[in-house]
Amino acid sequence: MNTPTDAKRRHDPAVRGFASDNYAGVHPEILAALALANGGHQPAYGADEYSAHLTSVIRSHFGPRAEVYPVFNGTGANVVALQSLTDRWSAVICADSAHIHVDECGAPERVGGLKLLTVPTEDGKLTPELIDREAFGWDDEHRAMPQVVSLAQNTELGTVYTVEEIRALCAHAHERGMRVHLDGARIANAAAALDVPMRSFTNAAGVDILSLGGTKNGMMAGEAVVVLNPGAVGAMKHLRKLSMQLSSKTRFISAQFEALLSGDLWLRNARHANAMAQRLAEGVKTVDGVRILHAVEANAVFARLPHDVSERLQRRYRFYFWDEAAGDVRWMCSFDTTEQDVDGFVEALREEMGR
Amino acid sequence: MNTPTDAKRRHDPAVRGFASDNYAGVHPEILAALALANGGHQPAYGADEYSAHLTSVIRSHFGPRAEVYPVFNGTGANVVALQSLTDRWSAVICADSAHIHVDECGAPERVGGLKLLTVPTEDGKLTPELIDREAFGWDDEHRAMPQVVSLAQNTELGTVYTVEEIRALCAHAHERGMRVHLDGARIANAAAALDVPMRSFTNAAGVDILSLGGTKNGMMAGEAVVVLNPGAVGAMKHLRKLSMQLSSKTRFISAQFEALLSGDLWLRNARHANAMAQRLAEGVKTVDGVRILHAVEANAVFARLPHDVSERLQRRYRFYFWDEAAGDVRWMCSFDTTEQDVDGFVEALREEMGR
Amino acid sequence: MNTPTDAKRRHDPAVRGFASDNYAGVHPEILAALALANGGHQPAYGADEYSAHLTSVIRSHFGPRAEVYPVFNGTGANVVALQSLTDRWSAVICADSAHIHVDECGAPERVGGLKLLTVPTEDGKLTPELIDREAFGWDDEHRAMPQVVSLAQNTELGTVYTVEEIRALCAHAHERGMRVHLDGARIANAAAALDVPMRSFTNAAGVDILSLGGTKNGMMAGEAVVVLNPGAVGAMKHLRKLSMQLSSKTRFISAQFEALLSGDLWLRNARHANAMAQRLAEGVKTVDGVRILHAVEANAVFARLPHDVSERLQRRYRFYFWDEAAGDVRWMCSFDTTEQDVDGFVEALREEMGR
Amino acid sequence: MNTPTDAKRRHDPAVRGFASDNYAGVHPEILAALALANGGHQPAYGADEYSAHLTSVIRSHFGPRAEVYPVFNGTGANVVALQSLTDRWSAVICADSAHIHVDECGAPERVGGLKLLTVPTEDGKLTPELIDREAFGWDDEHRAMPQVVSLAQNTELGTVYTVEEIRALCAHAHERGMRVHLDGARIANAAAALDVPMRSFTNAAGVDILSLGGTKNGMMAGEAVVVLNPGAVGAMKHLRKLSMQLSSKTRFISAQFEALLSGDLWLRNARHANAMAQRLAEGVKTVDGVRILHAVEANAVFARLPHDVSERLQRRYRFYFWDEAAGDVRWMCSFDTTEQDVDGFVEALREEMGR
Repeated sequence: MNTPTDAKRRHDPAVRGFASDNYAGVHPEILAALALANGGHQPAYGADEYSAHLTSVIRSHFGPRAEVYPVFNGTGANVVALQSLTDRWSAVICADSAHIHVDECGAPERVGGLKLLTVPTEDGKLTPELIDREAFGWDDEHRAMPQVVSLAQNTELGTVYTVEEIRALCAHAHERGMRVHLDGARIANAAAALDVPMRSFTNAAGVDILSLGGTKNGMMAGEAVVVLNPGAVGAMKHLRKLSMQLSSKTRFISAQFEALLSGDLWLRNARHANAMAQRLAEGVKTVDGVRILHAVEANAVFARLPHDVSERLQRRYRFYFWDEAAGDVRWMCSFDTTEQDVDGFVEALREEMGR
Repeated sequence: MNTPTDAKRRHDPAVRGFASDNYAGVHPEILAALALANGGHQPAYGADEYSAHLTSVIRSHFGPRAEVYPVFNGTGANVVALQSLTDRWSAVICADSAHIHVDECGAPERVGGLKLLTVPTEDGKLTPELIDREAFGWDDEHRAMPQVVSLAQNTELGTVYTVEEIRALCAHAHERGMRVHLDGARIANAAAALDVPMRSFTNAAGVDILSLGGTKNGMMAGEAVVVLNPGAVGAMKHLRKLSMQLSSKTRFISAQFEALLSGDLWLRNARHANAMAQRLAEGVKTVDGVRILHAVEANAVFARLPHDVSERLQRRYRFYFWDEAAGDVRWMCSFDTTEQDVDGFVEALREEMGR
Repeated sequence: MNTPTDAKRRHDPAVRGFASDNYAGVHPEILAALALANGGHQPAYGADEYSAHLTSVIRSHFGPRAEVYPVFNGTGANVVALQSLTDRWSAVICADSAHIHVDECGAPERVGGLKLLTVPTEDGKLTPELIDREAFGWDDEHRAMPQVVSLAQNTELGTVYTVEEIRALCAHAHERGMRVHLDGARIANAAAALDVPMRSFTNAAGVDILSLGGTKNGMMAGEAVVVLNPGAVGAMKHLRKLSMQLSSKTRFISAQFEALLSGDLWLRNARHANAMAQRLAEGVKTVDGVRILHAVEANAVFARLPHDVSERLQRRYRFYFWDEAAGDVRWMCSFDTTEQDVDGFVEALREEMGR
Repeated sequence: MNTPTDAKRRHDPAVRGFASDNYAGVHPEILAALALANGGHQPAYGADEYSAHLTSVIRSHFGPRAEVYPVFNGTGANVVALQSLTDRWSAVICADSAHIHVDECGAPERVGGLKLLTVPTEDGKLTPELIDREAFGWDDEHRAMPQVVSLAQNTELGTVYTVEEIRALCAHAHERGMRVHLDGARIANAAAALDVPMRSFTNAAGVDILSLGGTKNGMMAGEAVVVLNPGAVGAMKHLRKLSMQLSSKTRFISAQFEALLSGDLWLRNARHANAMAQRLAEGVKTVDGVRILHAVEANAVFARLPHDVSERLQRRYRFYFWDEAAGDVRWMCSFDTTEQDVDGFVEALREEMGR
């Protein structure tokens, strides 16, 4: 590893903020796994030993029927997964705050030819009643056919469905002939929050297909489509390839997932990020004039505070406005957020509020 | 880097074959660059320091107007690049052996809504005359409008266009109002073969947009769309995102490219792979009954030999049939192919031919 | 016309209902025009004399810059028009009751690759404030770029924008760099309701492109895309063809439009249908227990009444539930609705309410 | 029908040429059927009496399992039919002269997301050997999966498959797990040429789905997708609607088809057009210097003659160049071509050749 290189470090590795869990880098154990997987030749396009082994790792989490297809990113995972459950004439019911609706530049529509039927939610969570607002008209050819309900766990608003809630949503969808997709970009944070295995609210609850997140939990790059109900899908490999989500040197995505999921790294990282968010929420509550907006159940804190305070604070720590007009902001914690980071941030917030 | 990990090495790093340059792993200098880029927080989605610096690296190769958009893989680079040059009604002229036609599972058609107009070639290389077979009918609404010519350098058949040839093709296309895309998945091998800078047969020759390969030349994962004629394209960032080719932790793609391109690593790797292919071709010529099919100009050797010999040889070294019915095979060399690998392979070939 | 034929009349031409203006047949003047346009040979695909003349007819309504592209149906007109104003990365803002969202089986998404950003409205009409709920984030590549506002005149709920309202919406959209599409499937009814020329609330108000309806106003089949702002669009002929909306014997669509639009047939038909809806609304108001839901401004009456009454009434007259759970129904009048039809229907309604 | 109208006759109904069978107008029996179907109200979108009856008419031709879906045009029929037989990852094998490849502006690719795998043919006709050039690699995710073979009867070159040939092609395709689509835009001409019922070379020969032509055989506008193997397709109504091929006043397409198909009008028209092409071919053979290019089996004559002669002749009769560089032209006969038309044309050809 001490090979001479022209590369330079171009950033200060001591600086962290609260902008996003994908501002963080790679967990050292995962970087080590990448080095281990290097060297020699391995078949490309998923035929390598690391990808073969990944199936057993995934099955240890999601049961013996699960099939795994590593992909590049979350949008890719979602669009491959949704296509696999749908015909050309189908629609997908989701929250109007869903990542697939607001953050993917229309990839579900453009790449997948999917129509999204969105419903407003209070806290990012669907309910059977909300689903029913769009779950009708399957025989009406003028209407895109609702074939899938897409949930996110945790949601874009940092809230977490209970196991019971997901079970009820899946039963509701299945009774109406629909399938269920779960966008698990932050699934580990949800499992940590609920203190249950990931299977409890996925295959065991009736979810048909899962977008399994890796990047936001300490991987360099990599997500996976996990098929939980193999009878519901077709030629997944072709679908991944035509969706431009097939990596040639797949061993390096699979090796990252193995490092994350074969032991408890996934859970350690998620628990830590969640704990930091709790610490942050506790700290924020001690600052007058800042209101926490949603239940802090995973690694995100949404808050409302004066716009000028946020702007001054952003000069010291990176974070995003969520709804700039309303003064709402989002603060994310990640696997590498430290207690000092949190405490320093709360102190800075207090200072800026006091000016 | 000595953190305990659950990860295991699952392959023998001493085993190499001749199947593909993406069976190889990551060059150590690039792995080192990844480690350097790790730690701390960096803005996601391309707003990091490594991506900012990449622009200047790219411009040192492709001139001051070049713009670079890192993406995940070659199909992604090609489809983003082709979309950027085309209207909804357009067609792309390419060789019938082109990767975009035979190896991308229809992604150009499905994701990009593109029609490909293919022409047969002798050796994978287009000519002005071949282009003219499909370059007509721009005003005819019944015909998809030919707006782009897509070349590959080097071609899928391992052949390399001269600078003059590409210049003539670009002039020919431009005179007819068409743009030129170059699929440079193995552009470094071509530059090494021609012993000219990459710019000589891209921006300086009239190419409008380039798919710049990294993975096949020693990167872990990463390609880039390089816009050489910025006036020809629109909102590239949106196009990359909707094509599901935007990495969140972009710093890790950009850092790989910097390691590859800021010094001469790209050229060292390519020259080595080409030299190994030459050595292989020389060796093969000493074996009776094996015919080399195309000029060996870069890092691929195409050969014809008895089918049963190939099958026995494949038990000892991995490689692919190219046209199984004809008995044609492809042997690829990569940055990590050794002289011993080549000599051992030639010896094995001789043995199997002799049985 | 007295040629022997195997065809039979299979329906009772005396039966009419209130289900839809496309349950009606063809106005006799239009049928006569079809017969006149028949015989001999005329160039196909729009190069005929009737299509050539249609341009001047359209320009007499929409000004000298207007260009007309006859198509088959309303969904086709909308999707061709919306594609013409958009890049691959764009989004279209519309009411959540818009036909393009609820009645086209996802054709805008699937054929056009468009993302719809819907907003809830009170009465089917957009306002500048409602547009602003989705009109933001043009530079954010994660968000589909809002490039078009799509209005319908009259709306799906039978309401009609004033000239001032459309002018304000267009100004609002243009200030934000967006274009305006108007779905004019029932544009004649709106012009009749407002008692202004069609141009007043289209080109003169700032609309960039129009879906001009014909079928619902007495044509056999035919709609048209009318380009009002030629600078905003590209190769319309190619777009129409690839969208599968190019008729081979175009003369027969163009001849229908000429019969409809060159004199006042379009206005007579629309005024009549509107008058019948007024008569119907007046009649309904005399029936206790039936509530009219929206302002009756064109040829539709929306009402709420007991579900069982509607069911009994549907055995006597065809009409649709609009929101079956709420007991809401839609009653449409058309060019061939008679006063006797209306009076008989009101009487039947009164009878069924009285049971 | 003597209602006053603003419409005018804008063409000379005595002028006919040899450009295309869709330059012709509407057969009088079909126009009469349209008038009969007019008046009163009929349910829209295919729920009318005419469409109900059409099913039995179609079954009398294509057997009791056949299902019919009227659409607007041939491109629409082809793209709906091809989508119905394919997954998102599929490819369609066809002749490189196929209408779906050369004349539909990429609609199969853009609307259907289909990849076409084309093979060169001598005379527009596929053979099992030609199919095999692209029928491989079903398990290879890099390759679009060949799921359908698309034939045209008669072909774009005016040639006609024998019943045996189609049977063999279907068997060949089915053995390889592929389905067969037949583009029957001119199917009546083929049936007339072979002197067999249409079923002989469609359902009875193994064809799975048919694009049934009407417009080129004397209808005003209208084609149909005829499902011959219902087990092979999904929600056809949704597919037709999302492909923008659902007519609101469907009764008028169905009534045309009834007039064409319930008696022998379809066959009379086709036989006449074929006979005129034979007469034309006989006449042309008497003119020195003109070479007929393909077997004249249906209603098209392809010929090669000096370019300047064609240009002079085009001033007297409309027809198209087929391959302008080669001097190849196409002369089409239609249901309304007269013996005088043919004889006059041959005489004009002789005159122009003599100059």
